[in-house]
Amino acid sequence: MRVLSGMRPSGRLHLGHLYVLERWMELQAEHDCYFFVADWHALSTNYDEAAAVLDLTHDMVADWLAVGLDPERSVLFVQSDVPQHAELHLVFSMFTPLAWLERVPTYKDQIRQLGERGKDLHTYGFLGYPLLQAADILIYRADAVPVGEDQLPHIELCREVARRFNHLYAPVFPEPQGLVATVPLLPGVDGRKMSKSYGNEILLAAEPEEVGRRVNAMITDPARIHKTDPGHPEVCVVHTYHGIYSVPRLAELEESCRGGKIGCVACKKILAETLNRLLDPVRERRREYLARPGYVEEVLAAGAARARAEAAATMEAVREALGWRRQP
Amino acid sequence: MRVLSGMRPSGRLHLGHLYVLERWMELQAEHDCYFFVADWHALSTNYDEAAAVLDLTHDMVADWLAVGLDPERSVLFVQSDVPQHAELHLVFSMFTPLAWLERVPTYKDQIRQLGERGKDLHTYGFLGYPLLQAADILIYRADAVPVGEDQLPHIELCREVARRFNHLYAPVFPEPQGLVATVPLLPGVDGRKMSKSYGNEILLAAEPEEVGRRVNAMITDPARIHKTDPGHPEVCVVHTYHGIYSVPRLAELEESCRGGKIGCVACKKILAETLNRLLDPVRERRREYLARPGYVEEVLAAGAARARAEAAATMEAVREALGWRRQP
Repeated sequence: MRVLSGMRPSGRLHLGHLYVLERWMELQAEHDCYFFVADWHALSTNYDEAAAVLDLTHDMVADWLAVGLDPERSVLFVQSDVPQHAELHLVFSMFTPLAWLERVPTYKDQIRQLGERGKDLHTYGFLGYPLLQAADILIYRADAVPVGEDQLPHIELCREVARRFNHLYAPVFPEPQGLVATVPLLPGVDGRKMSKSYGNEILLAAEPEEVGRRVNAMITDPARIHKTDPGHPEVCVVHTYHGIYSVPRLAELEESCRGGKIGCVACKKILAETLNRLLDPVRERRREYLARPGYVEEVLAAGAARARAEAAATMEAVREALGWRRQP
Repeated sequence: MRVLSGMRPSGRLHLGHLYVLERWMELQAEHDCYFFVADWHALSTNYDEAAAVLDLTHDMVADWLAVGLDPERSVLFVQSDVPQHAELHLVFSMFTPLAWLERVPTYKDQIRQLGERGKDLHTYGFLGYPLLQAADILIYRADAVPVGEDQLPHIELCREVARRFNHLYAPVFPEPQGLVATVPLLPGVDGRKMSKSYGNEILLAAEPEEVGRRVNAMITDPARIHKTDPGHPEVCVVHTYHGIYSVPRLAELEESCRGGKIGCVACKKILAETLNRLLDPVRERRREYLARPGYVEEVLAAGAARARAEAAATMEAVREALGWRRQP
């Protein structure tokens, strides 16, 4: 099975992204995987912040490698290094009704949400971004795409586009499946959704001391003044994290908290140690990669070459289907 | 000055196109010219007739060469051979407001006109086609584009897109000028607009006998039964043609017609001879080219290579402006 997935380079990766990357690692172990940095997509919502994309791309791929994505096994590349994404998007645009794009649920939602933050997304590219996603997927004729529940309408659009092309011209494309995985919702240190815009993240690249500082900043039970006061783990961010990262000790920690037997400082120390144990191998691999200057660029150049070869073969099939293939 | 112009491969070229090609010849004599077959654009209105595009492209370029376009002097190429058109179109889409496209006058007009003929053009690509035109022009950083009056709003959009890019990122693009030329309106043999859809054209590739037959089919003064009846040149298609192609003899022909001194058969014979004299050198050059199998393909391959080199340089400048240029 061929699997494709991408991430926008719109900020540094944090612990919340680790779930996604662990999912990618599982997929990598079993399938033919294409993982890409969606830099054109980053422009669709942030065309006024283009200059940040290059460094964010580098750091994102360094994080991927540090987590363990294997550039020999999987194809790791940058979207804009493969011009066929733009070409296929253009072909698809010709027969895709505007109504298909206007009815994508995330379209109006995001226009509204980002509009409230003063961002006007009534652009041609933002309307077309699910179509660019369809091209991203179909240019590699991928069979499956790991997605969150909210992304399923995009996969449905992709399938419709594939069907319409196959019907109009010739059967070139599979109809990809969405591999829905429910990832736990990881709160930021302030209890809100972990997000760059709230400044409440723990970065994958954080050093141990930084992890300690971020964990110390986590909001705990406000009713608990003294260590001996009974705690309420259900309102404590530290406890939410323990529920994810300290599962074997969870019952013990909860009991100690409720019984006033462990203070928040100690409880946070345990969490910081746990997170640092989780991140230590990631740091170790990152150190190895960063000791090789230009390594990330080499990985991306090799990945782009592999991706382009595959994408070029698809565009040949597209031209053949259109009846546009000139005899050499 | 760099000049760019294109034609859609949506039908065989006819006498009406000769004006445009003569304009191209004038431009070619003085400027650095890029002339392209707009095959992606042909899909925007005719995605269900893609299979015809390849042959129409070949025949169109054979006509260009036959009329006298010089592939050494000008760059003759096919749009889809240069992937940077699609890439730049994608970049532009990110910051182009939907409203800019929706307000292009031809957009709603064509939706309505083609809608009446049963064609639904509410597609993403049709809405975006003036933006693709902007990319077609700006990917070569062209200074000027020969257009009809009705195309001026497209040039204005192109200038707005160039300004917006230059303002957001860095000054990469010129603001191209529209070179407006008024071309006489050439009627078809039935007196309506010359068009493939009416089947009333005289093709540039027509052999002399075919030109004779088409001229014989022209509608003349219906009130004139006998040669000696006084004619009314103002209602006669043949006379309209003489007004364009037989200017030195026009007064004499008009007088003979009004005086019943020349019959329609003789008048048509004069016109057919005039048109054939006009087309003879075109036929001669066409014969030369067609005697060299694969010549048109060679011209297009060489043109595409020149166009791609220029387009790649522009995309490098675009990446530099976005801050996306990786150090090699």
